Amino acid sequence: MTVTETLAQWAAALVDLPDTMRASVLSSVFDWASVGLAGRGEPVAQRTRAAVLEEGGAGQAGLFGGGSSNARSAALVNGATSHALDYDDTHFLHIGHPSVAVTPAALAVAQWKDASGAAFIDALALGLEASCRIGDWLGRAHYEAGFHQTGTAGAFGATVAAGRLLGLDAGQMTHALALTATRAAGLKSQFGTMGKPLNAGFAAEVGVTCAMLAAQGVESTPDAIAGPQGFGPTHAGMARDQALDGLGQTWVFPDVSYKFHACCHGLHAMLEAAGRLRNAVTADAIQSITIHTHPRWLAVCNQPSPEMGLGAKFSYRLTAAMAFAGVDTAALDSYTDAMTSRADLVALRNKVTVIGDPALTDMQTRVSVTTAEGTQDAFHDLMATGPAEAVRQRLQDKSASLLGTDVSGPLWQAVAGLRDASHTKALTDILFA
Amino acid sequence: MTVTETLAQWAAALVDLPDTMRASVLSSVFDWASVGLAGRGEPVAQRTRAAVLEEGGAGQAGLFGGGSSNARSAALVNGATSHALDYDDTHFLHIGHPSVAVTPAALAVAQWKDASGAAFIDALALGLEASCRIGDWLGRAHYEAGFHQTGTAGAFGATVAAGRLLGLDAGQMTHALALTATRAAGLKSQFGTMGKPLNAGFAAEVGVTCAMLAAQGVESTPDAIAGPQGFGPTHAGMARDQALDGLGQTWVFPDVSYKFHACCHGLHAMLEAAGRLRNAVTADAIQSITIHTHPRWLAVCNQPSPEMGLGAKFSYRLTAAMAFAGVDTAALDSYTDAMTSRADLVALRNKVTVIGDPALTDMQTRVSVTTAEGTQDAFHDLMATGPAEAVRQRLQDKSASLLGTDVSGPLWQAVAGLRDASHTKALTDILFA
Repeated sequence: MTVTETLAQWAAALVDLPDTMRASVLSSVFDWASVGLAGRGEPVAQRTRAAVLEEGGAGQAGLFGGGSSNARSAALVNGATSHALDYDDTHFLHIGHPSVAVTPAALAVAQWKDASGAAFIDALALGLEASCRIGDWLGRAHYEAGFHQTGTAGAFGATVAAGRLLGLDAGQMTHALALTATRAAGLKSQFGTMGKPLNAGFAAEVGVTCAMLAAQGVESTPDAIAGPQGFGPTHAGMARDQALDGLGQTWVFPDVSYKFHACCHGLHAMLEAAGRLRNAVTADAIQSITIHTHPRWLAVCNQPSPEMGLGAKFSYRLTAAMAFAGVDTAALDSYTDAMTSRADLVALRNKVTVIGDPALTDMQTRVSVTTAEGTQDAFHDLMATGPAEAVRQRLQDKSASLLGTDVSGPLWQAVAGLRDASHTKALTDILFA
Repeated sequence: MTVTETLAQWAAALVDLPDTMRASVLSSVFDWASVGLAGRGEPVAQRTRAAVLEEGGAGQAGLFGGGSSNARSAALVNGATSHALDYDDTHFLHIGHPSVAVTPAALAVAQWKDASGAAFIDALALGLEASCRIGDWLGRAHYEAGFHQTGTAGAFGATVAAGRLLGLDAGQMTHALALTATRAAGLKSQFGTMGKPLNAGFAAEVGVTCAMLAAQGVESTPDAIAGPQGFGPTHAGMARDQALDGLGQTWVFPDVSYKFHACCHGLHAMLEAAGRLRNAVTADAIQSITIHTHPRWLAVCNQPSPEMGLGAKFSYRLTAAMAFAGVDTAALDSYTDAMTSRADLVALRNKVTVIGDPALTDMQTRVSVTTAEGTQDAFHDLMATGPAEAVRQRLQDKSASLLGTDVSGPLWQAVAGLRDASHTKALTDILFA
């Protein structure tokens, strides 16, 4: 059985989600909805929405920012919008951001077909899991070659979710995934431009499109992902077949990592560790700060002396200074040009040394802070997410900070009620008002 | 200036088409329209159209088979439909089929924006030329790696055509092409499935989408095609910069090659040569036939003893036998399963020897036929297209054979009248009835 068929049979079969998976999916829907609502004013969101509104359309699904369109155009707009702030979840096995490609596809089709909340959650769970598995199957070589797994692996996940909600059988799902193989795309060279969030939107739209085509009986080749000149071989995929082990028995998606700081994910373990040290020292007393992190991040988010707010989001030294000085690193408006030249932060930043340490994983960071009293250490591993309830509380705090409690409260209620809802309207009424 | 910017500045500038280019574009529109109308009953055409009609939509542009949708969905349907029969034009420098990706995008936007016939032709000319230039820039290594230039280079051409009709300036066109770089796709491993014609439709849709986004102000990186981890470097592109030489002064599109036989283009030079010999010999008298062709084709269309109609389309031996036996190789319904087992054709087919000859280009074939009277030779080079009037006559014959003269006659009149038409309605009324 080919990789394409293996995934399709799993995705089309009956599903009985374990509680941990269902809880993770609900947390991710909530986080996705929060960052999507918070991002709807971003230029890429507004402009993509304007392009789609110009098409007119059938009002099948709502758009962040208001209005509606056909399902696949809604997936495009909502994918780009929810990734616009770069504040959405990350999965390190996936090497990308699963929710922003898969959730818009699932929600657009669920809304269009008036699916139940439970059907939406099941489809989304399968899509999110599929995108993580395929991202892992493609592997780091695919990412290093220049492909953006959020867009590529994300498209396959979006297809699974959309296909599930369109009721595809295993054969149709095979064709839908095979069409995705000739359609999935997304380059990292778009980073720093509106093309990055659009990669998520494009992936979401590809998923809806390929599922719709397969539902109408369009056929492709069953070996399109892993076979000769399939998607993997033509896109530097590593064909890590072990990534598909345990499909149906185990779920990798719950290892998803949420952003609680509005900056590059490579900085988050450091900021968590710094947060634990912060109450033990005053900024004025700090003589030096040393950060040990995985060497990969040094090429990603180690701008030593940023001069713009965007650069601050990619700077160990400045964000460490911000954390120890008590600046809220979760707030979007902390990352301004002015923040990069604030005298106390510049002084503190200049006391920070960043060291690449291959003994750490890329989710681990150690921070040491030295004062006249001595040196204190803290270590954080993003894989150690802590109790589910604590994570959910932080997500609610994040949402409240982004949207205000008058929105975040009802939003959480709508998400929590999905399992028993006969449709997704309570959620979409808030998101697409 | 980057490759992306070079193309964008050329595509957005004033254009003064030479007569040869304009004539070629009109011929290609006519041929594209003929094979699109003839293909509208194919399963991939009907199913893709059904998927799009389910979206509803704003009636911006017509669909082969009837009905309408928004422009980018129309581009998808009409691209897939016009490539469904594999009877559309080929450009050997492009290494693909330019019209099926570019023309649907141009026509959908022209219809949506009620552009004049002249504006449609200008935009289409630029788009077709761009797709040939980029196909050549990507080169044979891109094709050999598994990418289908019809889909990849075609998407860039579609963007140029659509962007031109949306009035993009050079900066916006740069962004439109840069977005295309993160969106273009298409795998050869889809050959033999509905994914092949869909690659053309997807490319057409990508073009309209990226042009629409750029028109709304969406921005990307100006180095997205040739820069680090741009489309070329990540997709085995050869970066043949000479492919862009003379842009604005010279036009490569007029070397386009039309199909006058309803089979693989690798067989056409042979069939042209055989056609010249056929009147000099009777099939019964033939002792042997020898075909010298470029070795590349032996892996493409040299099925020695096909048993199905589809196989016949990829068989030097059988189609040579058909040609010498007087079977119409231009007719779609000549390629049946029954044809492959017709006794006289099997006997004649068994007298054919096919020899790879690296001294020939892949557009040249030599045929020798031996009877008791001796041996006669004929040589054909597809690059030697003959007088434009003769080509046009053959296109009209082909169209009449596909559609009947009651359709092909008015269709030609509508195409010939485009240059002076204030819109494309005379054409679209025929195509999308």
